[in-house]
Amino acid sequence: MRIALGLIHYPIQDRQGKVVATNVTNLDVHDIARASRVYGLDRYYIIHPMQDQQIFVHRMLDHWRVGEGAKMNPKRRTALTMVETAGSLDEALQNWQERIGAKEKPLVVSTHARAIDGVPMVSYREMRERIEAARAQGGDRDVFLIFGTGFGLTEEFMRSCDLLLEPVRGVPPDDYRHLSVRSAVSIILDRLLGAW
Amino acid sequence: MRIALGLIHYPIQDRQGKVVATNVTNLDVHDIARASRVYGLDRYYIIHPMQDQQIFVHRMLDHWRVGEGAKMNPKRRTALTMVETAGSLDEALQNWQERIGAKEKPLVVSTHARAIDGVPMVSYREMRERIEAARAQGGDRDVFLIFGTGFGLTEEFMRSCDLLLEPVRGVPPDDYRHLSVRSAVSIILDRLLGAW
Repeated sequence: MRIALGLIHYPIQDRQGKVVATNVTNLDVHDIARASRVYGLDRYYIIHPMQDQQIFVHRMLDHWRVGEGAKMNPKRRTALTMVETAGSLDEALQNWQERIGAKEKPLVVSTHARAIDGVPMVSYREMRERIEAARAQGGDRDVFLIFGTGFGLTEEFMRSCDLLLEPVRGVPPDDYRHLSVRSAVSIILDRLLGAW
Repeated sequence: MRIALGLIHYPIQDRQGKVVATNVTNLDVHDIARASRVYGLDRYYIIHPMQDQQIFVHRMLDHWRVGEGAKMNPKRRTALTMVETAGSLDEALQNWQERIGAKEKPLVVSTHARAIDGVPMVSYREMRERIEAARAQGGDRDVFLIFGTGFGLTEEFMRSCDLLLEPVRGVPPDDYRHLSVRSAVSIILDRLLGAW
C-alpha cells in the first residue's frame, strides 16, 4: 500500500465561511515535503486550480532542485523531488494512479477539525493497523491523504471523501485545536506511520 | 508537573558547522505557539541574545494580541498569550521558575537529530510515562523542553542539558530525518502528551 498526500487550496472556507482559494504558502511546500519524506510517502501534491499559483510552486522547486538551492542545501532537494502540482483532487488522483500503475482508484482519506455528517470516521489506531496489515499482506487500496488550508475544506467537498480521520484534539478543559496545517500533517503522519 | 518550551537561536550550527545566531522566523512563533496551546504547555520562550530580534517578536505579538490581528483572528491571540522572549536559556529558566513559583530548577530536556556523548538519552515512552506518573502523583520537577533552529544546537550546549530525547527517525532504508523545527516540535509534543 502506497501513500500520497494532497494539500488542497480550493474549495476552502475562510473565517466567515465563504468559499475561497487560498494562496500557496512557501513553508507548506517545504515543511510538508520534508515530513512526507521522513515518513516514506510516495508523493506530495500541491493542489490549486490557478495556473499562476502552480507556476509559483514550480519556480520554487526549480530553485531548490536544480538552481542555487540545490548546491546550498542538497537535503532539501531530496525532499522536494516528491512534490507535484495538480489543478484539482481528481487530476491529482488520476496522475498518481497512472504514475504508480495502480488498478484501483486510491482510497481518499481526509482530515478535519471536526466530524462531518455522512463521512465514516476512522481512528488513528484503526488506520495505522490497516496500513500495517496491507504492508504485511499486500492487497489493500493505495491511500491518498488530504489536508485543507485556510479555515478548512468545505463540507460538500468532505462528503466526496471515502474516510475521515478523527480530529487532533486539544487537552481539556478548552480543547483548543487550531494547529497549523504543517503541524497537523506532521502529527498525523507520525500517528499513522511513526516508529517509536 | 508543568512543561515549557524554548526555541534556541544561539548558539546554533550553520550548514558548515560554524556557530551562529539564526533569525527568528515568523511561522516558528505562530506554529509552535499553536501546538504548545493544543498540548497544554505552560509557556513558550523564543530565546535570542539580540535585542532587535526580541523586539521583532514583541511587535508581532502586539499585532496579534492587541492590534488588528486580535480582532481578525482571536484564536491566534489565544495561542500567542503564552509566548515570551528571553536572551538566553538561563534567563528563560529563571523567568519561568519565578513565574510558576517552582522551588527546584526545571529539568532541561533537549532534542537533536542524533545522540550526543555524555547526555543521557530517554525514549518517548519513558518520558511520557514520567510525565503521566508526575501528573497522577505529583512531586517531579517541571520540564523545560528545548529545540534548536538552523542546523541544530552545538554539542557543547547540548552537554549542559539534563536529558536528551531520542531522534525522530525516518523510515528505512535511508532514514532521512530533516524535519523542520515546526514539524519536530509538533510530533514530539504529540508523542509526549497526545491522547489518541
